[in-house]
Amino acid sequence: MRHAVIMAGGAGVRLWPLSRKNHPKQLLKLFSGKSLLRESFERVSALLPPEQIHVITSRGHAPFVAEELPELPAENIIGEPVGRDTAAAVGLAAALLHHRDPDAVIGMFTADHMITPTERFCDTVNTAYEAAENHADSLVTMGIRPNRPDTNYGYVRRGERIGDGIFAVKKFTEKPSVTTAMKYLAAGEYYWNSGMFAWRASAILAELKKHLPPTHDAVVEVASQWGTQAGPARLEELYPRLMKISIDFAVMERAAKVLVVEMDCHWVDVGAWPAIEAIIGADEHGNVGAAPKVMHLGSRGCVVVSEVEHLIATIGVDDLVIVHSPDATLICKRRDAAGIKELVTNIQEEYGDEYQ
Amino acid sequence: MRHAVIMAGGAGVRLWPLSRKNHPKQLLKLFSGKSLLRESFERVSALLPPEQIHVITSRGHAPFVAEELPELPAENIIGEPVGRDTAAAVGLAAALLHHRDPDAVIGMFTADHMITPTERFCDTVNTAYEAAENHADSLVTMGIRPNRPDTNYGYVRRGERIGDGIFAVKKFTEKPSVTTAMKYLAAGEYYWNSGMFAWRASAILAELKKHLPPTHDAVVEVASQWGTQAGPARLEELYPRLMKISIDFAVMERAAKVLVVEMDCHWVDVGAWPAIEAIIGADEHGNVGAAPKVMHLGSRGCVVVSEVEHLIATIGVDDLVIVHSPDATLICKRRDAAGIKELVTNIQEEYGDEYQ
Repeated sequence: MRHAVIMAGGAGVRLWPLSRKNHPKQLLKLFSGKSLLRESFERVSALLPPEQIHVITSRGHAPFVAEELPELPAENIIGEPVGRDTAAAVGLAAALLHHRDPDAVIGMFTADHMITPTERFCDTVNTAYEAAENHADSLVTMGIRPNRPDTNYGYVRRGERIGDGIFAVKKFTEKPSVTTAMKYLAAGEYYWNSGMFAWRASAILAELKKHLPPTHDAVVEVASQWGTQAGPARLEELYPRLMKISIDFAVMERAAKVLVVEMDCHWVDVGAWPAIEAIIGADEHGNVGAAPKVMHLGSRGCVVVSEVEHLIATIGVDDLVIVHSPDATLICKRRDAAGIKELVTNIQEEYGDEYQ
Repeated sequence: MRHAVIMAGGAGVRLWPLSRKNHPKQLLKLFSGKSLLRESFERVSALLPPEQIHVITSRGHAPFVAEELPELPAENIIGEPVGRDTAAAVGLAAALLHHRDPDAVIGMFTADHMITPTERFCDTVNTAYEAAENHADSLVTMGIRPNRPDTNYGYVRRGERIGDGIFAVKKFTEKPSVTTAMKYLAAGEYYWNSGMFAWRASAILAELKKHLPPTHDAVVEVASQWGTQAGPARLEELYPRLMKISIDFAVMERAAKVLVVEMDCHWVDVGAWPAIEAIIGADEHGNVGAAPKVMHLGSRGCVVVSEVEHLIATIGVDDLVIVHSPDATLICKRRDAAGIKELVTNIQEEYGDEYQ
């Protein structure tokens, strides 16, 4: 049976001050009045009933996920005691589903991307499920057809054509330089590595056993005890010891049979504030507004974000990110948005945990 | 008898979003936990008892003034039905005090300047009172000894020495160019026009009669009916018709006998946000903070102001004015601070009176 697992771990410190420890970026309602998690859930709901959709998130965020997705059966929310990157999350989800359904085919989805249109997304995901079903021991990654030489994403180079929109993967590459990214774009055989996958539970567990045995063994053991009283205690005990590594580094780049399914969608990783522009678009002065009340006078290239009704007014400023929250406001040069992590650390040292 | 009149009219739109129609800049507590009006009142209180101190303000602000200055007798607050600039305010105060006390000597003070040290201020004001008493038909202006070639102030050029720190005025000049301001500074015989004066009530009324007869006649008529039921109605009727002009343009620049008393104080016109730097001083990165919680990362030359406990955090920005209020935040290039008036007009057009 087909299942979907939405990975909603991580806090998204780069979206501070809106994202906080107890209000991670997946729960932000920035664009449509719906959170990114809700959007992700609704996209997948077009394909599968709620009983076959699962969310893996940090244990602390599980109540917020339940509140955000009331349709989701409570037992479909998997709470991680600590974050251990995607290799552990992928493994835990696979082991739990495999334990329940040895024929499980799993689609892995992200909770912090904007993807449109939904119809094309669904078509591609169906293709990915089929590829995973038809090529039983293969891992399938979904690759986004790039429309610009973006240096913020890893790329997947396709090889031999396997079927309609399905290719063997020749190589995974790291985030490229601009020159390299332009070559990739021109070559036409590179995709953005979307972080979305499809595979049989048995296939990913087999690869995990090969490349990351301790994680494999731990998640299989936890899954075998999941329905019992001992399950949660065992997870608590074993999970923190797992290697903190992405599924890309741990498995995808090293697995023998990897396919890529081409997704021709508008796709934005909402990882940092400047990305907002790719979603909302800018006005004629290059200003981007995701806030109820904004007034610019002679300002250009500014991204203004607020979830609450607070007026942001600017005069003569350029290329700023301005993010307002009820207790803190960030004003940051767009090119310096990567400094938010350091800023938040400094704030913690000066003012304590209040703003975390 | 000596009296003091503090002019607390005007809203100070250039200090938006902290200053508002119902919370004018004189009431802002920016520096010492005391409002500018309170500071002004306390300075003058070192010289005169509350019974001899008066405040002229817009009628709408009168309750706020009463609350801010509980020591002040209620009848010493003069409420203007509309703002008619300083010529009308000076005239009304002079007429009312002259009606009560034909020998009144009046010191006119501002409510939106920072002036230190208080002792030197008091000495100079005493000199100004004495000059007004000893030269019965003269108008005395207080001139600040400049310490930089500031182009934001008008200047007073001194002439013949009349006494210790007292000179005849040779000329009033408009705000100069930088080159001219540097010449003024080097010449040593120019003062900043402080907007503070001393004169006998009879002297200023005589000059007003000569140079602005309709205003003179109106304020004298209102004063003669002040204690009666008809007084307020007459004020309401006559005041809006008065010419809107400053006492400098209407009288000071045209009067025959004008003296200047030198005030060697640190004096800042808190007319616009960048002026805050002259009061608070900047840190080693040129940042100026009048806010409870601020965190800069690689930012320089920023002025941050907030009356409430809201964290303002910046990364990599230069020369900004950032002012936070509970319902609006301003982010403005320092050099563009003069645009606030236009900005506030645009905001009113877009969002209504809420932010006025």
